[in-house]
Amino acid sequence: VNDEEALERLAELGLELPPPPKALAVYVPVVVAGGFAFVAGQVAMQEGSPLYPGRLGADVTLEQGVEAARRCALQALSALREALGSFDRIDRIVKLDVFVASDPRFTDQPKVANGASELLAAVLGDSGSHARVAVGVASLPLGACVEIAVTAAVRA
Amino acid sequence: VNDEEALERLAELGLELPPPPKALAVYVPVVVAGGFAFVAGQVAMQEGSPLYPGRLGADVTLEQGVEAARRCALQALSALREALGSFDRIDRIVKLDVFVASDPRFTDQPKVANGASELLAAVLGDSGSHARVAVGVASLPLGACVEIAVTAAVRA
Amino acid sequence: VNDEEALERLAELGLELPPPPKALAVYVPVVVAGGFAFVAGQVAMQEGSPLYPGRLGADVTLEQGVEAARRCALQALSALREALGSFDRIDRIVKLDVFVASDPRFTDQPKVANGASELLAAVLGDSGSHARVAVGVASLPLGACVEIAVTAAVRA
Repeated sequence: VNDEEALERLAELGLELPPPPKALAVYVPVVVAGGFAFVAGQVAMQEGSPLYPGRLGADVTLEQGVEAARRCALQALSALREALGSFDRIDRIVKLDVFVASDPRFTDQPKVANGASELLAAVLGDSGSHARVAVGVASLPLGACVEIAVTAAVRA
Repeated sequence: VNDEEALERLAELGLELPPPPKALAVYVPVVVAGGFAFVAGQVAMQEGSPLYPGRLGADVTLEQGVEAARRCALQALSALREALGSFDRIDRIVKLDVFVASDPRFTDQPKVANGASELLAAVLGDSGSHARVAVGVASLPLGACVEIAVTAAVRA
Repeated sequence: VNDEEALERLAELGLELPPPPKALAVYVPVVVAGGFAFVAGQVAMQEGSPLYPGRLGADVTLEQGVEAARRCALQALSALREALGSFDRIDRIVKLDVFVASDPRFTDQPKVANGASELLAAVLGDSGSHARVAVGVASLPLGACVEIAVTAAVRA
């Protein structure tokens, strides 16, 4: 991934990277080891609160879920760039795990997950395409509607 | 894994690989990077619809769940072979993540997951044995009853 | 990680490693491949039964959930040490996946997960800090309240 081009694509999308998540006492935002970067699960935050709390199929609309997933991906990119110093070191996003807080009758998790997948592809180009798992869970931290985890293959 | 032997074992089981899942716009069926192959989450499909939609402990029986898990594993093997060109390149299945759509009272996720685990071992032999995570989720894409994700260590 | 020091820290915490989980027919407790060790999902067990069965936000308290998560981490460490022969071979815990059986209204999964995260840091020091995903699921094997999966970067 070319760092400058990725930043330009973000600007063209009218987006900017949010501040990277802070290192916490008990776990860290990103671990880089063995040729991979493992990004901790991101829930979409806005001014210290979860964006669109609740569950899909109940109190959160599909559009809100998509936007939350997109925001999660943006946060994960910010965490990755902070840990690696530059997008240049990303060889490939290899895996995207998407957990959607869901009423048992909600089965459109892939549409929600597309919000994250499309952002990664838009910003990182071919290197942003990934294998994906999307499931509907009972609930998420802080009452968030979506949580995503990103794994990337990285260069030394 | 010896490709020819694996194909023979499939035939002996009376099984054949389904057509590999198609590459989609926003994510891909398999990413190979850093010595591993990451297979996207598979839900058991039959003629374009999910096999046994619903939840275990509610509208799907244990036997149906096991069969769906087995079918997911077969689809994952098909995706892997398509991406790698041959089973020869599989060094080891390292991880199997099994998500079972579950009524909160259903706790037999391991029995469902065995449908996938046993198929991998039957087809790939010792290289098919893996670490496994099995959990019960609220709901899955398309209303599927099981989704599995496979990670393999691969040779260049 | 220095094996002797890690064992000393365990003793100082008044803890000991439980017997490592047995190899099962259909999957294995740990797979080591490609520079990583993948530990199968652990549910907290005590004398053959799950410790504190049930769901957080319903029939299991936060304190019980934290203790169960801690116990899961201890079991994972035992499995890792058995597979690797010594903690010396652990370069870094890279990822902790925490699945908390949750009533849909329960959103304190991070507090439960801290039980596992803090134990890993206490025993393994800096090498124990990790990226983490914590989600609330509908149900878990045997009715367990928490299941965790550990991935470690390891040395040959």
